[in-house]
Amino acid sequence: MAKKPYRIGVDLGGTNIKVGIVDEQDRILAKKSVKTRAERPWQEVAKDIAELAMRLLAELKIDISECEKMGVGSPGMIDHINGVVVFAGNFNWDDIPLVTELRRYFSLPITLANDANCAALGETVAGAGKGARHVVLITLGTGVGGGVVADGILQQGGAAGGMELGHTLLMLDGEECTCGRRGCFEAYASANALARQGRRAAKTDSKSIMHEMCKGDLSNMNGAIPFKAAQKGDKTAQRVVDDYIRYLGEGLINCINVWRPEKVLLGGGISNEGAPLINPLNEYVRPRCFAGERGFVPHIEIAALGNDAGIIGAAAL
Amino acid sequence: MAKKPYRIGVDLGGTNIKVGIVDEQDRILAKKSVKTRAERPWQEVAKDIAELAMRLLAELKIDISECEKMGVGSPGMIDHINGVVVFAGNFNWDDIPLVTELRRYFSLPITLANDANCAALGETVAGAGKGARHVVLITLGTGVGGGVVADGILQQGGAAGGMELGHTLLMLDGEECTCGRRGCFEAYASANALARQGRRAAKTDSKSIMHEMCKGDLSNMNGAIPFKAAQKGDKTAQRVVDDYIRYLGEGLINCINVWRPEKVLLGGGISNEGAPLINPLNEYVRPRCFAGERGFVPHIEIAALGNDAGIIGAAAL
Repeated sequence: MAKKPYRIGVDLGGTNIKVGIVDEQDRILAKKSVKTRAERPWQEVAKDIAELAMRLLAELKIDISECEKMGVGSPGMIDHINGVVVFAGNFNWDDIPLVTELRRYFSLPITLANDANCAALGETVAGAGKGARHVVLITLGTGVGGGVVADGILQQGGAAGGMELGHTLLMLDGEECTCGRRGCFEAYASANALARQGRRAAKTDSKSIMHEMCKGDLSNMNGAIPFKAAQKGDKTAQRVVDDYIRYLGEGLINCINVWRPEKVLLGGGISNEGAPLINPLNEYVRPRCFAGERGFVPHIEIAALGNDAGIIGAAAL
Repeated sequence: MAKKPYRIGVDLGGTNIKVGIVDEQDRILAKKSVKTRAERPWQEVAKDIAELAMRLLAELKIDISECEKMGVGSPGMIDHINGVVVFAGNFNWDDIPLVTELRRYFSLPITLANDANCAALGETVAGAGKGARHVVLITLGTGVGGGVVADGILQQGGAAGGMELGHTLLMLDGEECTCGRRGCFEAYASANALARQGRRAAKTDSKSIMHEMCKGDLSNMNGAIPFKAAQKGDKTAQRVVDDYIRYLGEGLINCINVWRPEKVLLGGGISNEGAPLINPLNEYVRPRCFAGERGFVPHIEIAALGNDAGIIGAAAL
């Protein structure tokens, strides 16, 4: 039997379709991307995935028979057992049998999973969680996503809609969440939530430099501005950052009390804030986990692979 | 090699030490218990476990060589990897190497786990979750405990202090919890929490029949009284029950959004309320999970094994 040292990883995003060829050491040998243009028929998206993969293999002079499998990470609610995107709001997709369609192009095992779950697996096999068997990744982007590797196994839930770590409560009857519930972790810890918190605070303080940073229009507020303004000494912005760290910290304490992972990793746009985010966050979380200092409290770190986590994780499914 | 058809299950509780001999069909062939008397040296508790097991084996005419393994469920924070009770508040135990001590009596594999985790495994192999590979059990007793079986594997967390499902948030800055945090699921959904909710409500309504049921002293309030009073038409009690179902429901929605189990089971004292608890609870939860009716929503049911879940689950570790 021929050796199969390569795997194909696909990161299907709202903006780009990214495909990479990954080797046995979980390194990306080459990658390519095209625009997703999700408004077109979904079969064309599947065709683009296949074409990107075939072009990469040709350029690397790798035969498809040398590929062990293909993994695909997709946003939305995934039926990982049947390889179906149950729905993806951004794509306007409903019950898309993506794996069945991809099998028209490739005769190798194909697996579909949620994109945040793929990123968690990628960081565990090749990123900031390498060497650990228990990792929780939380992505702080437009929403709050996440993934869990427990005892080396990617947790995906028993049916579609599991592992929605962003849609667990922080505050009953709290802020409205995109999911229809109120008070979800996502409604407090996403980049959008932080921008909203920044806008509200700036409205109460006409002297805050956040106004200037928003060019006088608070609709320009984003998740980076409160951090930048706080570093320049703006007290109102500092309060926004402090509150945000508390919200994020409380959600991470929930994750630690449930999984006690070796590492908690942060990805997504807000994780780019680095030390001014991570240091006070670790200080906040350490004494507040169940059993406090008597229990093992993992260190919270920034994820390492950036956009490559999705490809590497998908290839590792 | 001799066939090993039997296993020893131990349920170490605050009141009683219960030991059972379990067969290959996860049935308890015989069981015995003695008082725990946790105030004595812990080695005596271990000795009692050993003696109960040996008496049971003798009565059943089973040789220890026919036993595959022993499992022990203990309250408190468990280091399941090293077989240590890190601490158990009720027992005043700290870093008790229970497995090492039990190995002095038995030369067979011995595993230690949290008691609520054992109950979840017991219900999955032989109780209301039988046949399912994904089960969440929540126990509504003095506190709120729980356990998760995901893809057939009991989840115990990466280190001691994991799977504390009762110590995830329902309400940031909410009710004080026994763990030192505020707003935990346990602080809203335990039997103690329900009694507190009942007391508070009765104080606002001198005509509520809850006063009579408490014999004029609200310190006699317990988790059963609001349910009983509501069934007799007491409107104040009905509001307490409605609120409680909402709190419990929100915590269960969190569990469903994370694990999407095939079944959610309720154990512990409050679960004895049966239909008046379970029916409105299912109605509350069904439309409120992530993705609502588009996702799979498990049925919430009462656990089936009662006190035997701990023994059967421990034997199945």
